[in-house]
Amino acid sequence: MTGLFITLEGPDGCGKSTQVAPLADYLRSKGRTVFTTREPGGTAISDQVRQIIMAMKNTTMHPRTELLLFLSARAQLVEEVIRPRLAAGEIVISDRYADSTMAYQGYGHGYDRDLVARLLDFATGGLKPDLTLLLDIDAEEGLRRRQSGGGEWNRMDAYQLEFHRRVRAGYHELASQEAYRWITLDGSQTPEMVQLAIRQAVDSRLS
Amino acid sequence: MTGLFITLEGPDGCGKSTQVAPLADYLRSKGRTVFTTREPGGTAISDQVRQIIMAMKNTTMHPRTELLLFLSARAQLVEEVIRPRLAAGEIVISDRYADSTMAYQGYGHGYDRDLVARLLDFATGGLKPDLTLLLDIDAEEGLRRRQSGGGEWNRMDAYQLEFHRRVRAGYHELASQEAYRWITLDGSQTPEMVQLAIRQAVDSRLS
Repeated sequence: MTGLFITLEGPDGCGKSTQVAPLADYLRSKGRTVFTTREPGGTAISDQVRQIIMAMKNTTMHPRTELLLFLSARAQLVEEVIRPRLAAGEIVISDRYADSTMAYQGYGHGYDRDLVARLLDFATGGLKPDLTLLLDIDAEEGLRRRQSGGGEWNRMDAYQLEFHRRVRAGYHELASQEAYRWITLDGSQTPEMVQLAIRQAVDSRLS
Repeated sequence: MTGLFITLEGPDGCGKSTQVAPLADYLRSKGRTVFTTREPGGTAISDQVRQIIMAMKNTTMHPRTELLLFLSARAQLVEEVIRPRLAAGEIVISDRYADSTMAYQGYGHGYDRDLVARLLDFATGGLKPDLTLLLDIDAEEGLRRRQSGGGEWNRMDAYQLEFHRRVRAGYHELASQEAYRWITLDGSQTPEMVQLAIRQAVDSRLS
């Protein structure tokens, strides 16, 4: 049995975080060992970095600083957790990964995307997901969900709506560039419908 | 009056940190506004990153994680402190800067130096020092100083001696590549003699 690296991507409020646990339960019910993580974070060191990124007090953070902090948290997660578990044949599910950086910093902030690709390649040591599930949702709807329902409001939410629109368009472009590993799902459906679609996508990849 | 960006570089234990304050005092006595900083650190955000880098508990930190953390602290320092002060005509003295990353990670850890150069260019937005003072010292002597006299022992000191030898050789190569901005001083002299040499070097650059 070989390892499988699954990532969930999408704009803020797309609902992907609530899909991780039920997907993991489903795969465990099929006898697989599953490890779930989230970005930024997932190791003791990465969680320390996460605290810096998310802290409301750090309002003067420059976008380049932010990008490098995301990359440092990810580098640690890849080496300490993801690679060893994939090598042991486990399924690793990550709530966000490198594609988030390209969508948010490359497309959202407008950084040179060739350079961002090189930075990502360095941080991950070249590790790409086997399967990326994009929960697609309208930028306004995503932000509305964040502000009304669960999840605490944080510094990352304060960016303008226009930024989130660029992020969404970026995801669409990324999915079309490497179609073999992306599956785009309608994130505006009920969580139950989204989970059903996710399970079908993963089943087809596993078989 | 234009700003001047001075950096002090050298292997661990070369004594550069003790030279910063007297150099700043000297330049202030000449009527200049001087700001001193150290790497990693120098802003509230960068100091939070510094704590992660230096913490003894973070023994599992991967070298790529470490490099990206150094870069993130530096990106913030450049944008929040160094550029604004240089633009205001001040003299900025930094205890370590981008050359440390090239010496430690490029030459010490053996990372692709073209890639490290691109990473540095990204993190600094292309800002280079006007004058870099290299306090050259034998790697054994530098480590011996760290272990016997002042300064607390930290995780960074635990690397092997061979690593520090590569770092020193890297500094020599960097100084030869951009000789116009580097001045190499004998760090094995007394602190008073080193300070005298530093003041002469800075005077000649200012005039």
